[in-house]
Amino acid sequence: MSGFIAIHLGAGYHSPERKAEYNEAVNKACQQAISVLKNGANAVEAVAIAVSTLEDSPCTNAGLGSNLTLEGGVECDAGIMDGDSLHFGAVGALGGIRNPVKVAKALLCEQRKGLLSHGRIPPCVLVGNGALQWACDHGFKEVNTSSLITPRALSAYRKHKRALTGFSTLPPDQQESLAKRMKGDGSPVIDGDTMQDTVGAVCVDSNGQIASAVSSGGIALKHPGRVGHAMFFGCGCWAQSHTKTSMSVSVGCSTSGSGEQLMRCNLAQTCCEGLLQSDDPTSSLGNTFQRQYLKSPFLTDDAARLGGAIAVRYNHKDRDAEILWTHSTDSLCVGYMDTTQTKAKMVISRLPPGASAGSTYSLGGATVHLPLIEEPP
Amino acid sequence: MSGFIAIHLGAGYHSPERKAEYNEAVNKACQQAISVLKNGANAVEAVAIAVSTLEDSPCTNAGLGSNLTLEGGVECDAGIMDGDSLHFGAVGALGGIRNPVKVAKALLCEQRKGLLSHGRIPPCVLVGNGALQWACDHGFKEVNTSSLITPRALSAYRKHKRALTGFSTLPPDQQESLAKRMKGDGSPVIDGDTMQDTVGAVCVDSNGQIASAVSSGGIALKHPGRVGHAMFFGCGCWAQSHTKTSMSVSVGCSTSGSGEQLMRCNLAQTCCEGLLQSDDPTSSLGNTFQRQYLKSPFLTDDAARLGGAIAVRYNHKDRDAEILWTHSTDSLCVGYMDTTQTKAKMVISRLPPGASAGSTYSLGGATVHLPLIEEPP
Repeated sequence: MSGFIAIHLGAGYHSPERKAEYNEAVNKACQQAISVLKNGANAVEAVAIAVSTLEDSPCTNAGLGSNLTLEGGVECDAGIMDGDSLHFGAVGALGGIRNPVKVAKALLCEQRKGLLSHGRIPPCVLVGNGALQWACDHGFKEVNTSSLITPRALSAYRKHKRALTGFSTLPPDQQESLAKRMKGDGSPVIDGDTMQDTVGAVCVDSNGQIASAVSSGGIALKHPGRVGHAMFFGCGCWAQSHTKTSMSVSVGCSTSGSGEQLMRCNLAQTCCEGLLQSDDPTSSLGNTFQRQYLKSPFLTDDAARLGGAIAVRYNHKDRDAEILWTHSTDSLCVGYMDTTQTKAKMVISRLPPGASAGSTYSLGGATVHLPLIEEPP
Repeated sequence: MSGFIAIHLGAGYHSPERKAEYNEAVNKACQQAISVLKNGANAVEAVAIAVSTLEDSPCTNAGLGSNLTLEGGVECDAGIMDGDSLHFGAVGALGGIRNPVKVAKALLCEQRKGLLSHGRIPPCVLVGNGALQWACDHGFKEVNTSSLITPRALSAYRKHKRALTGFSTLPPDQQESLAKRMKGDGSPVIDGDTMQDTVGAVCVDSNGQIASAVSSGGIALKHPGRVGHAMFFGCGCWAQSHTKTSMSVSVGCSTSGSGEQLMRCNLAQTCCEGLLQSDDPTSSLGNTFQRQYLKSPFLTDDAARLGGAIAVRYNHKDRDAEILWTHSTDSLCVGYMDTTQTKAKMVISRLPPGASAGSTYSLGGATVHLPLIEEPP
């Protein structure tokens, strides 16, 4: 079976010193997804595998290693979309579950079955304790919050909490710097810890179907109960298969960055709409990101617009996929791999030297040709 | 000060026998909003007042009298949007608060102040226990769930629970009928109880600014933690003031119906985009509702598409407002009033006789001329 996966480790700041760590996370997530694709998994299953592997990685802000809330807890958001059925499943402010994206996927799969056994409409998005309860009722194991807290996340939490205490006495530039760090914009933090946002994936399977997913630990020191773009339809991820676009192309997108901003720009859906309307995918993504995000009328009050996205445009006729990325944060770590390859390709895209995060953007891309014949396992 | 308010009591089924009750609720909500508008309140304050008055009414599925969850609790969603700043605030699966829309408004107002005291990004959407905690920290009083349960809601809950037990043994047509009732599509229930969905309001104030709001108790017997369209940006409500549309018109919308469906169609925003592009508001709303909801590719798996909306298009040059409504449920109860009037106008719009809820729609509207001069208090 053929197919490919594209993933991102979040928009933010990726320290050059930790490149090997990112590479390991990228490789593992891509390998896992490619492995299940080769065994006949569909795109929805593959993005869930890729994103749950990223959740398990301590170097991402999702699942294990998530930013801590104001009260020192872990509350995650995740979303997943199936480009074939156009169904969406998501969870918000979910604690006590190791892999939130798997719960989102379970919600998606339940919906595809139609009405519940008692004629009730299956939920599309569940939050908080109700989401945890649903997950446990559907075979997920509740874990202790402490098992999701990494030493790095705890150390960052303690430092931010200490800084908060003296925040009002800091000079304005230091206040701004601290605010940016908590926002996950990737300002390098003195001792080398880093901040990234939502991780995600887009996959095309051997049937040419597309799916996308996102998962996030949210912003550092967020108020408990705060939900970000990962659980909002059209904001965190988007997928539309060729059968649904009335064209020979499938499109998918997964976003990362300041959740409140991405939510107000419906960024994932908007990027895909652009890709469907243009024959020049790279320019389309750049234009969409600039016009609908960096210069969006919905963000006029925001000094810095910190976000990023990966997007895929797959042409079924020639079996070529354009994998694209853009970001206004200092960096975006991207990986991709297809079923003919044994190792993922990783790109840490960075803003041009001297460019200011939050107002300018970088743009990149690669083309993958999807083999028609079945690959040996 | 001049201005006007348009409200709805939810898409569903409004029993002719209970017309006086609806009229009282409509009148009270409009009067309260007009009263604060006359005293100089802005559109955001007025929609919050109107919707909180509807929440207090036991005959609506919002706040007091909400549908009960599977476990017999009350969990509400609410959202509010300011067409001037384009900011949005929302809560989801919020229990223990009498007026969820007021918490959504408080979240909106906090965002407009910019970063929080410690440099943190203010949350836009809060859910569950975290939302309750935030509300209590911001001066809201926690109430006991039992104080929000009306005898009618409890009776409907018990009946549905009993029916669920024997659901699988019911003949298919009765299963379908029960499913529809729980979905709030307004199928008349034998003993005269009724089901409606999300309530909402759109207001234009004396400065010509527009705002909108929604509030919902959700679907009957929903899983705890399930959130619907009221808390989703672009889905439950939308508002864009003329200063933001680069035109001389302000637009606003508030939707109601099957939350999962409305979410996937981004209906409030989509209706407003249509109103901005057309000189024929009534046709525009009808076309949008038909094309983007009833025939939406996102709802191909859904047998019935049960929703409704009120929309406002206000022209600043001639100070005329078109108040429009549409619905595919059996009925939609609409009210409107301006600052020159002493009593609200109520319309219970119904599908044509014999029309099938979920696949056809009704469309209606009225024009209001907003006085330029200040009205005596």
